[in-house]
Amino acid sequence: MDPRRLIIDGLQYSNWSRRIFEQMRAGGVDCVHVTIVYWETTLETLNNIATWNRLFAQHDDLIMPVHDAEDVIRARESNRTGIVFGFQNCSPIDNNVGLIDIFHQLGVRFMQLTYNNQSPLATGCYESADSGVTRFGKQAIKEMNRVGMVVDMSHSSERSTLEAIEISHRPIAITHANPTSFTPAIRNKSDTVLRALGESGGMLGFSAYPFHLKDGPNCALDDFCGMIARTADLMGIDNIGLGTDLCQDQPSSVLNWMRSGRWSVEADYGEGSADNSDWPLQPEWFQDNRDFHRVWDGLSDAGFDAAEIEKIMGANWYNFFKKSFAAMAQDRD
Amino acid sequence: MDPRRLIIDGLQYSNWSRRIFEQMRAGGVDCVHVTIVYWETTLETLNNIATWNRLFAQHDDLIMPVHDAEDVIRARESNRTGIVFGFQNCSPIDNNVGLIDIFHQLGVRFMQLTYNNQSPLATGCYESADSGVTRFGKQAIKEMNRVGMVVDMSHSSERSTLEAIEISHRPIAITHANPTSFTPAIRNKSDTVLRALGESGGMLGFSAYPFHLKDGPNCALDDFCGMIARTADLMGIDNIGLGTDLCQDQPSSVLNWMRSGRWSVEADYGEGSADNSDWPLQPEWFQDNRDFHRVWDGLSDAGFDAAEIEKIMGANWYNFFKKSFAAMAQDRD
Repeated sequence: MDPRRLIIDGLQYSNWSRRIFEQMRAGGVDCVHVTIVYWETTLETLNNIATWNRLFAQHDDLIMPVHDAEDVIRARESNRTGIVFGFQNCSPIDNNVGLIDIFHQLGVRFMQLTYNNQSPLATGCYESADSGVTRFGKQAIKEMNRVGMVVDMSHSSERSTLEAIEISHRPIAITHANPTSFTPAIRNKSDTVLRALGESGGMLGFSAYPFHLKDGPNCALDDFCGMIARTADLMGIDNIGLGTDLCQDQPSSVLNWMRSGRWSVEADYGEGSADNSDWPLQPEWFQDNRDFHRVWDGLSDAGFDAAEIEKIMGANWYNFFKKSFAAMAQDRD
Repeated sequence: MDPRRLIIDGLQYSNWSRRIFEQMRAGGVDCVHVTIVYWETTLETLNNIATWNRLFAQHDDLIMPVHDAEDVIRARESNRTGIVFGFQNCSPIDNNVGLIDIFHQLGVRFMQLTYNNQSPLATGCYESADSGVTRFGKQAIKEMNRVGMVVDMSHSSERSTLEAIEISHRPIAITHANPTSFTPAIRNKSDTVLRALGESGGMLGFSAYPFHLKDGPNCALDDFCGMIARTADLMGIDNIGLGTDLCQDQPSSVLNWMRSGRWSVEADYGEGSADNSDWPLQPEWFQDNRDFHRVWDGLSDAGFDAAEIEKIMGANWYNFFKKSFAAMAQDRD
C-alpha cells in the first residue's frame, strides 16, 4: 500500500458533528487523532468512547475507527476519515496500570502523561518545579510500550519530556506543539527536546493553535512553513508532521473545562489571560479541515519537494502509527 | 475448518490458576465461557478484565482470549484453551446501554439479564413475582443483538426467559441449567422454556453443579446422560451442549459473594441452606476439566452416536458462537 499523499492530523479536539466530518472529507483528510479526555474519570471516559461509538454508527459513510495503520488505508480507500483516540491526560488510568491495556483494547492509541499540571506520572509544562517521570510514570511507560499506546508529551515539562524520551523503549510523540524558537509559548518545545525527540525516532506535530504561533492569529503561512523548514533541519524530515490542535465549534465552557477541569476553584486561563479568556481566532489560512491544501502549497513555496511534503502532511504519521500501535511480543512474567 | 471433536464448556467460574489451565489442557478443553462478574460495578469489572489480561500474558502457552468462533479454532490449533468472557449479571452496565458495546469491545460475549434477583432488565428466578423483561431490558436486548453479545437467561425467571426468547432477534442461551423434569431446582427450566428455546435456535448448556442434579453430588453419570437424551428429544440435537458450572478451588467467601453480593444484610443461602451453606461436592464423574472424556463415554453409553456426541460436547456451541458473536450490520440512526 502506497502511503503517499496521505493527510493525517496529529491532533484535533472539535465539537464533533456531521458538518465537521463532511469538512474532513472535503479537505481530503485521511485520519485525525482526536482528543477524548482532558480531566475525565475512568467512567466518564467510557461514556466518551460510547458517544464516539454512536458517532461511528451514525456517520459510517464519513468516519471509521482507526486501531492500526492499515485502518488508515481502509479509511482512505472507502472515502472516509479514520479516527484515532487519544487522552490529553492520564486521569482515566486512575493509578491503575491495568487500565492502559483496557483502553488500548477500546482504541486509545495516544496518552499524554500530564496535561499542564503535575500528574502521578510526570510534570506538566505549567508547573514551576519539574521533577521528571515518576515511579508510576516509569511503570506506565513500560506498559504503554507493551500494549502499543504512544507516550505523548505535548503538555509536559522539559525534564519530564527528556526523561520520557529516554525511558520509553518505543519512540514517543509531541503531537501538537511548535519550537520555542518560533514563539516562546510555555507549551512550545526547546531545541534540546526536539533534537532528542528526532534522534529517538519520535514525532513532532506542528500546531496551528494561535497561542503556539508567532503573531498569534495573524501568523503568516510562510512564517509557519519557514518554521517547519528550520525544524526539519533540526529533527530530520522523517520526524515531523501536523498536529493542528484545531478546536472547532467549541463553546467557551469547553475551554474552561480544558484549562481548569475540576482542579481549581479560581479560573485558570492557561495560555490566555483574564482579559483574553476566550477561544483565539484561527489564522486565516487554517480555518477548518478544508484548508490542508493551503498548508500543502505553503510547504511547496517554502522549498520542500513533493516527497518531503507528502511526508510532512501524512506519510510520517502513517509510518509512526505502523511502528507504534501494535502490541509488542509479550514477555512471560 | 472442521469443528468436530471440539470440547467447549458453556460456563465455569473457578479460582483461576496455572494448575486449572493445565487441567484444561489435559482434558482437551478447547474453549470455556468464564464468568467474570456476579455483582461487580463497572470499575470492578474493568479490573477483572485487567486481571484476565494479565493471566493471558502470564499463561499464553495454555490460554488465549476468544472474541469470535474462529478464535476457538486458533486456540485448538495452538494447543491452548480459548476463554470467552461472560457476565452473570447486568451490574457492569449500570443503566447505560452504551456500555454494552464497550464491554463487547473488551471481549464480553454473554450477559445474563439478571442473577437470581430482579434487575433493571428482567426478573431473577428467586423472585416471587415475575414481571418479565423491562423497558430497559428491551433496549438492552436490542443493543446486545446489534453488537453480538448473547442474552443468557440461566438465572432468570420463567416469564422473563420466555419474553427474552421472543424479544431477541438473535437466539439466546441458557448457558448452565438442567430441565426441571430432571430435578425441581429453582434454577432449572421448564419444558415450556426449553421447547421455546430450542425452537428459536437457542442453546442450553447442561449443568454438573450438584444443586441442579438429581440426587445432588450422588447423581449417576447415566442419569445425567439420560437427562441429556430426553432433552435432545425435546429441544433438538443441535441446541444442547455442556455448561458445567464448574467452580473449582473457590473459598466459601466467593460463594457468599455470589449469593449475597452487597444486596443483603442477612446471609442468603441461594440453592443451599443455613445448615448446608458451603460448596457442594462435585459428582465423582466430574471432578475437574480432566473429566470431559467420562461425559463423552457416558453419552455413548446413553445411545448417542459419534456425530451427536460431538455436537453436544462442543460443535453446537461452536456453531452458536459463529452466529452470535459478530456485530450485525449497523443501521444508520
